[in-house]
Amino acid sequence: MAVYTEVADEELASFIGSYDIGALLSFKGIAEGVENSNFLVHTEAGYFILTLYEKRVDPADLPFFLTLLQHLAAKNINCPTPVAARDGSVLGTLAERPAALVTFLEGMWVKRPRPEHCGALGAAMAGMHVAAQDFAMDRPNALAVSGWRPLFKECGPNIDSVTPGLSEAIAAELDTLENNWPNGLPRGVIHADLFPDNVFFLGKDLSGLIDFYFACQDMLAYDIAICLNAWCFEPDLSFNVTKARALLNGYARVRPLTEAEFQALPLLARGAALRFLLTRLYDWLSVPEGALVTPKDPLEYLKKLRFHQSVDSASAYGLSL
Amino acid sequence: MAVYTEVADEELASFIGSYDIGALLSFKGIAEGVENSNFLVHTEAGYFILTLYEKRVDPADLPFFLTLLQHLAAKNINCPTPVAARDGSVLGTLAERPAALVTFLEGMWVKRPRPEHCGALGAAMAGMHVAAQDFAMDRPNALAVSGWRPLFKECGPNIDSVTPGLSEAIAAELDTLENNWPNGLPRGVIHADLFPDNVFFLGKDLSGLIDFYFACQDMLAYDIAICLNAWCFEPDLSFNVTKARALLNGYARVRPLTEAEFQALPLLARGAALRFLLTRLYDWLSVPEGALVTPKDPLEYLKKLRFHQSVDSASAYGLSL
Repeated sequence: MAVYTEVADEELASFIGSYDIGALLSFKGIAEGVENSNFLVHTEAGYFILTLYEKRVDPADLPFFLTLLQHLAAKNINCPTPVAARDGSVLGTLAERPAALVTFLEGMWVKRPRPEHCGALGAAMAGMHVAAQDFAMDRPNALAVSGWRPLFKECGPNIDSVTPGLSEAIAAELDTLENNWPNGLPRGVIHADLFPDNVFFLGKDLSGLIDFYFACQDMLAYDIAICLNAWCFEPDLSFNVTKARALLNGYARVRPLTEAEFQALPLLARGAALRFLLTRLYDWLSVPEGALVTPKDPLEYLKKLRFHQSVDSASAYGLSL
Repeated sequence: MAVYTEVADEELASFIGSYDIGALLSFKGIAEGVENSNFLVHTEAGYFILTLYEKRVDPADLPFFLTLLQHLAAKNINCPTPVAARDGSVLGTLAERPAALVTFLEGMWVKRPRPEHCGALGAAMAGMHVAAQDFAMDRPNALAVSGWRPLFKECGPNIDSVTPGLSEAIAAELDTLENNWPNGLPRGVIHADLFPDNVFFLGKDLSGLIDFYFACQDMLAYDIAICLNAWCFEPDLSFNVTKARALLNGYARVRPLTEAEFQALPLLARGAALRFLLTRLYDWLSVPEGALVTPKDPLEYLKKLRFHQSVDSASAYGLSL
């Protein structure tokens, strides 16, 4: 939740004037997205979201993200659609930052998802995977298995201050995952961050997916594994197999899983848990003394990792092929 | 800029359902207002602002604020208008806080006001003063002259750490103001916080006034004095007499100043400068060690006070009666 950048009146008017969307009627910073500054823009043509990309987004990645959203929207996937300026470009500059205007998406994220939400999520994710199969641009996953060990090292020497034995547990898991990480599974564009706050609903109906700023090329089933972690654990970190079954069934109705993908789920879920454990751990240990912002608890993902380590086979996720 | 309170899905749906405004379509925290949590709400009936009142607002004051807004809206003053729930009430409860839904006001605040903005502000403030003349509810100004000495004492012994001699300067000014504060000037409802971020414009046209949570009964000309401080100094703290003249002329076109009000302006402007100097000083000295939020600089208002102390007569503000 953040608005980082103030925008000068004249510069904003000039930016909006470069689009064919009429005069500006309202402009409000919104508390959404932790990486960028987001504003709700109302003009004579309707409502839009204006995003200023702050330093955590690499400007070189923006054409991938914005072109992907255009590609998905053209295939009727509900997602924010970049609006082109009069000169045809979807990426501009405002307040010395890269800036893009996208369509406003109705809906709200669900703070306590129920199984029907998980089912709708699975179907929408599969629909997005299928729609992006012919998307030609490439962006490697910077947080794929090869990126985890360097991130582990960047966490520094104080890992065990979070909980005793954590460093050893991560080292052992890294060995396992690096030696057994699946090869040859179907690949394509994945969202890579489909947490509940990036999925909008109107009642029980999923109204859209947002925040594609981790999207990349990777194994499609790895996106499912991220969602099993993000959607199917209860607040007490017990695993809700009804939600997992709904998610997998919802997905498979749109894009059936291969036998190899299905069998790989426990390992992929371990990898996804480790990936978020590592980024949260890094943030936790990097937080400046006295900061008011509390980073997310990395141990939540250690507990999720422990669950997936205890799983015998993919049938633990409530589905058999 | 803040959203303090998270709202549970079911509780929000139930709250919105108590109004006759159709189904909820979108709900976003907005970065506006430092005292309360504000959300932009889109329903089938349109756009609204939902405010959750946090601890800095006294719930006992809310009927005054909300009834005032209804009164002003009924007289065609552009301001957020409270929406009544099906049971007729304009004040509800959400997330264990007092909560109100008001209409959405188009427009944007102007970061660098020009003289024409100051003129429009003057006229709108006078219109508000006139429209509230028959408003029957009372709310004393907690930050009137009688409240400044107690606030000065609450600032504690470290005032001179901000700048040497500050404590003595404030004490001397308090003596002057307490002994010479005007009596018998026209009174009524004042906004008491009409800073640029509380005044919306569409182009050069003022589209509305917001954030009435300091509104109270006091001398009308004191509201003008607050605005002279908030609107007529340049970033380098030089006084822009063209802006002051525009503000006073804009005001007087709608509600002519009495001779006594006009002559009192320099003293009222000193009082208004001291009031914001004191609240900023209190916040400055109360900020916890290591906090990320930087409070506003109190010395900005010391410099403004110095300007008004140097003024011979009200004609220094660019207008003669």
